[in-house]
Amino acid sequence: MMQTYTPAVRTFLPLFYVAWADGMLSPSEVALIHDRIDEIESLTESEMKQLKRWSDPTQWPSDRVFKTWLELIKEAAGDLDNKALSSLAEVGVAVGERAARAGVTAPGSSATESAIRDLQEVLGLRGLEQFRSVSREAAEEDPALQLLTEDIQRLLDGEHVHWRRKVRALLADPVFEVRKHPTKEAQRKQVSEWLAYLAEHGLGKVSYPIETGGQADIGAYAAVFETIALHDLSLAIKFGVHFGLFGGSILNLGTERHHREYLPNVGDLSLPGCFAMTETGHGSNVRDLETTAIYDPDTGLIDVHSPSFRAGKEYIGNALDSQMASVFAQLIVQGENHGVHAILVPIRDAEGQLLEGIRIEDNGYKMGLNGVDNGRIWFDHVKVPRENLLDRFGKITVTGRYESPIGNPSKRFFTMLGTLVGGRICVGKAGLSAAKVGLTIAVKYALHRRQFGPDKHSSETIIMDYPTHQRRLLPKLSKVYAAHFALEHLMKRYARNNEEEVREIETIAAGLKSYATWLATDTIQECREACGGKGYLWINRFADLKADSDIFATFEGDNTVLMQLVAKGLLGQFKDAFHEAGFLGVYRYLRSQATDSLVTINPIYKRKTDADHLVDTAFFNHAFRFRERKLLHTLSDRMRTMLKKRITPYDIFLRTQTHMVALAQAHVELVLLQQFVEEVDRLDGDLKVLMLEVLRLFALSTIEDHKGWYLEHDYMEGIKTKAIRRQVDRLCRELRQQVGVLVDGFGIPDGLIGAPIAFQEFS
Amino acid sequence: MMQTYTPAVRTFLPLFYVAWADGMLSPSEVALIHDRIDEIESLTESEMKQLKRWSDPTQWPSDRVFKTWLELIKEAAGDLDNKALSSLAEVGVAVGERAARAGVTAPGSSATESAIRDLQEVLGLRGLEQFRSVSREAAEEDPALQLLTEDIQRLLDGEHVHWRRKVRALLADPVFEVRKHPTKEAQRKQVSEWLAYLAEHGLGKVSYPIETGGQADIGAYAAVFETIALHDLSLAIKFGVHFGLFGGSILNLGTERHHREYLPNVGDLSLPGCFAMTETGHGSNVRDLETTAIYDPDTGLIDVHSPSFRAGKEYIGNALDSQMASVFAQLIVQGENHGVHAILVPIRDAEGQLLEGIRIEDNGYKMGLNGVDNGRIWFDHVKVPRENLLDRFGKITVTGRYESPIGNPSKRFFTMLGTLVGGRICVGKAGLSAAKVGLTIAVKYALHRRQFGPDKHSSETIIMDYPTHQRRLLPKLSKVYAAHFALEHLMKRYARNNEEEVREIETIAAGLKSYATWLATDTIQECREACGGKGYLWINRFADLKADSDIFATFEGDNTVLMQLVAKGLLGQFKDAFHEAGFLGVYRYLRSQATDSLVTINPIYKRKTDADHLVDTAFFNHAFRFRERKLLHTLSDRMRTMLKKRITPYDIFLRTQTHMVALAQAHVELVLLQQFVEEVDRLDGDLKVLMLEVLRLFALSTIEDHKGWYLEHDYMEGIKTKAIRRQVDRLCRELRQQVGVLVDGFGIPDGLIGAPIAFQEFS
Repeated sequence: MMQTYTPAVRTFLPLFYVAWADGMLSPSEVALIHDRIDEIESLTESEMKQLKRWSDPTQWPSDRVFKTWLELIKEAAGDLDNKALSSLAEVGVAVGERAARAGVTAPGSSATESAIRDLQEVLGLRGLEQFRSVSREAAEEDPALQLLTEDIQRLLDGEHVHWRRKVRALLADPVFEVRKHPTKEAQRKQVSEWLAYLAEHGLGKVSYPIETGGQADIGAYAAVFETIALHDLSLAIKFGVHFGLFGGSILNLGTERHHREYLPNVGDLSLPGCFAMTETGHGSNVRDLETTAIYDPDTGLIDVHSPSFRAGKEYIGNALDSQMASVFAQLIVQGENHGVHAILVPIRDAEGQLLEGIRIEDNGYKMGLNGVDNGRIWFDHVKVPRENLLDRFGKITVTGRYESPIGNPSKRFFTMLGTLVGGRICVGKAGLSAAKVGLTIAVKYALHRRQFGPDKHSSETIIMDYPTHQRRLLPKLSKVYAAHFALEHLMKRYARNNEEEVREIETIAAGLKSYATWLATDTIQECREACGGKGYLWINRFADLKADSDIFATFEGDNTVLMQLVAKGLLGQFKDAFHEAGFLGVYRYLRSQATDSLVTINPIYKRKTDADHLVDTAFFNHAFRFRERKLLHTLSDRMRTMLKKRITPYDIFLRTQTHMVALAQAHVELVLLQQFVEEVDRLDGDLKVLMLEVLRLFALSTIEDHKGWYLEHDYMEGIKTKAIRRQVDRLCRELRQQVGVLVDGFGIPDGLIGAPIAFQEFS
Repeated sequence: MMQTYTPAVRTFLPLFYVAWADGMLSPSEVALIHDRIDEIESLTESEMKQLKRWSDPTQWPSDRVFKTWLELIKEAAGDLDNKALSSLAEVGVAVGERAARAGVTAPGSSATESAIRDLQEVLGLRGLEQFRSVSREAAEEDPALQLLTEDIQRLLDGEHVHWRRKVRALLADPVFEVRKHPTKEAQRKQVSEWLAYLAEHGLGKVSYPIETGGQADIGAYAAVFETIALHDLSLAIKFGVHFGLFGGSILNLGTERHHREYLPNVGDLSLPGCFAMTETGHGSNVRDLETTAIYDPDTGLIDVHSPSFRAGKEYIGNALDSQMASVFAQLIVQGENHGVHAILVPIRDAEGQLLEGIRIEDNGYKMGLNGVDNGRIWFDHVKVPRENLLDRFGKITVTGRYESPIGNPSKRFFTMLGTLVGGRICVGKAGLSAAKVGLTIAVKYALHRRQFGPDKHSSETIIMDYPTHQRRLLPKLSKVYAAHFALEHLMKRYARNNEEEVREIETIAAGLKSYATWLATDTIQECREACGGKGYLWINRFADLKADSDIFATFEGDNTVLMQLVAKGLLGQFKDAFHEAGFLGVYRYLRSQATDSLVTINPIYKRKTDADHLVDTAFFNHAFRFRERKLLHTLSDRMRTMLKKRITPYDIFLRTQTHMVALAQAHVELVLLQQFVEEVDRLDGDLKVLMLEVLRLFALSTIEDHKGWYLEHDYMEGIKTKAIRRQVDRLCRELRQQVGVLVDGFGIPDGLIGAPIAFQEFS
């Protein structure tokens, strides 16, 4: 990209840089610039064209272009004094000459120089005097901080560092540059082009079997996905829908035959597909989907049908671009309903024409993710061959009978749904990516924005120095770190694919997905508010971060429903106990689980407020575990009492619903703590010291969130919760010194941060 | 509007109604419809045109058009049986005939009928069989509920019911119909047209003096503003910026001369203006604005100037349409800076051309409110006559000296800023309007949406019956009621314009604005999530409600900064004590305030859990007051300790900042409680019973929010906070029965609710 700028064009960069950094150009200013450019005879036609394009407000240059300019200017401006820096013409000549020295022909004429000089004056543009006082550069020059930042990046990148770097490098390609407020049509087109680009570079198929062209590496897939999410959530979701959900359904619910036949084409995007599960009438309650798939032994065909309007598939991502859908429907063979199964149904031909019996409608504008084509699909007795049933867990034999390796229909259903788990982990990770971008922007802004001060004679205070500001951002930052480690670890376990862990992984995935996506919503909101009016401008990214990630709390499982799933998971082998042995089974299981702990808390412990104790990992562990166990114990007690009163299981479930959600939250937080502790144990040096502080802030601010509960249950006394509040204040104060390093540690390249306010030069 | 439909056109209404209610039509479906319409020879050209327009997805009919259709269909369909209802042609003929009977010529041919019959089949459209089972109509038919709903509406409408009804009626005009996802240019154009329409109907000037054409009724202005906010927040903000802020600055900071000269033209929108206070470098810290206004005694002119890039005015609403700005600048007379004053500066001529020395840039796309043209303004030595100074609180005499009725510059500054108070109350009210719309949509959806159920044989559960769902929506609903009453009452006090109340009103306004706007953000988010995927679709309004209201936490005073203002207000006559006598003055004042209460809490009281006590208003009052007094008391103690250690006042402020915010919150909640109690005391009958339950939910859920604090300060024991949790659960369960009435009580017309999911027919 840089190579394409001629020296003459480069001479103009400082002018354009300052003009755009100051805001939009008015039409009359644009006209002025064009006039002056026209007058410079030494410019070639293509140079003129490029310069004019850069002054067109409808072509508002992307942040990546900006960054490129900035780098070129920085290189050349290093030797200039403040006087020279104040003239955009002088800086421009230096930029141009530098390119010329590098072997390109000498730059422009004095006409160029005087045009720039005039334009700076007429447009009232400031110079670049302040250029070298940019604080972030000072930080970059401290080698110790630099090392620490790199240590954190390495730690967070984990084993898939290769894939993350690859994606970051790809996303730096000019093809990803466009960032303007688009219509949904333009945005969809853009995302489709990006998607094709990523597919071309082999990123879609990394989780597929090696025989089908993939790398059989689901962990790498997750790393790729979460890195894409730093750039654009529409792109990430479209990527996830096609490669992860559609391809994933073939991979996980199909058999080798399906892998061979379809995955190569899914992997290179020549067979675009969608995942048609949710219906208008049934979202969370997948088991009661209405779409039917009735096998006709005479023709050997499965008849896929939407029996009602509400049975139509809804919010189906990629619906408007797909040629095939993985359709979840009630499979009926020989008149018997065998429950929900997935069937591959062609919906468009290779030219994109809808096939017979298929009706598709656009879901229209959404709050966000408008780069994803969500649609509604109805099937009118669409016939597909028996072989299109994804039959790993249930097949139709040549003789027309249904056979399944899992006899129990309920168990079969949950096993199939288990294939959603990878997607859930990925959504949690994408939410975290959005939260990381938001925190990076808000923290960088807070490190250079000043407002109010002690008196007229002092400079105003950097807003990151306000305790309220620290309280807003730092506990959330610590929770994002906690969630990062927990999701990374969970993905590793998921990738190991160990049969015995499956149920536990499902439970944790449901909980972590909810935790991470709710955390993302809260964090982005807090970051937006912390950036004031600047945070509200579209260019500073919060608008999209917020609107795009908002649905994460709903799709791939509504968070509130998932939290109940976590609780049910904890209520023992819930499939067996809850659904088969009934509540008594649950109760028996619970007693066996709950009686092991919950000794009376020592009065000295309740009032222990010395700093050593309050930041001790053993204390955190005990407090988090106590909360989880106690909630489980009291839940079991309530259930027993209700059972005795002959209350129906469904009513018991309703009456204990909020209790179940609280239990789930306590469990998820325990998982987060344990993983964070394990992570820190493995570290050493400065990195360990810093991460331990982050861990402590996570743990203590979480305990503080629940201090009402802890006091209520006599686990602590007021003297202790007050001391904890002071510890949280202290940790916020101390981590404020490292907060720049902590967000730089996320390793988000400047071009992907995007928001001008993150960079002092722009705000 | 209805009169313009011919009988033949009406015959098609059921078809179009069902087609659109089912979702978007595909291009091929549209083509089909057009073909069939072309074949009907009896249709006139304009009938054909209208019918074709209705089938164009880019012209997607507005909700108001839908509602009109629905009413026409309902009128005609009343006598039809289910079989007839299932045929859209039969229903259509009935609708057409009804119009024909009403005196219009007889409807269409059998060709029309058979075209509709074919289209229903080809497009696979359902009939209207379910038409009369719509649950909300059942509720409408219960006269007791209907009465109660009307009682609530009357209560909430308050004294300005006339103005509210007027605005609701105006907003029902077809001119407000357009609802499609627009570009910012289209949206701005639309909002400007709407604004002109409202101005034409005299709504902008209601707060202006009668001599200038107004009604001198600020309370009516607030009612108008908050009712407009139900429809569109961009329109409300543009309305508020011009009439409220720009006009308000002339009204409140100018003198009679300014009123006479400008307000008539402001009131009829012939002089569009903006309020140029915030600068890029200074938002919250208004006192340190950089713009200068230097008086030159030789010419008698004031020179208004932006000395730096960061001194440019930013986020100025209406900046791109205004001819005049009310500019806040440091007024310098005879070389002395007299602090921030407002000066009227012409910025465009009557043709809209920028005047010399003015530079204006578009702020570009924002997260929301894209119908408001926010921009940046710089002044390059712009000269205006001395008379343009809004000089109620500080004037320049003919002899060129500065004179002010308020000698103390700090007091003068805060007196001038006090004119923002009306705007703050209005922003709080607009936030509540958005929250009310959100709650109405979410509750109505929750009352007909079903998901999951006890078993295969029962119908699924209405989601409003889930305890988690009640917990999500009902406490927020109770808080919205509380905030409504408090803001109404505050506006009344503000309108009385009693000198002695000014300071207290400013304090409460700062607190209530923050409370109401944060509540709006939380409530809309919760409502969106409670509506799942449907809530994410743009058509269902949460996208705009959320994005548009998001900035309310920032503008008209950043909430976190305002909360500190509340605390400072409570810290006594802070202007005098804090700024002049220093912290010792504050401390002395505090001691005098704080020692009056805070007796030791009786151990029996701490453990009192009988239901009578827990829902007793006296208990609420004591608990809320205790929290506020205790926080004030401990804050004063901390300040004293720090003062003794010779910590500087600014550092004391920093170290107690979070404490101050907590105190402010406690104070605001006490104000909310007291006002709610007063309100309920005035009522009787069923309305009183219901409102008392809402009050109890507000009070107990607020105490529950702070249970950690109450336990920590030994005000209650765990046994009591647990009992409170159970009371909140109980109240949620009981109010669930009335929740439909509670949202209908907001009195938002169906056309303004807008979201299809609020109406069973659509979802």
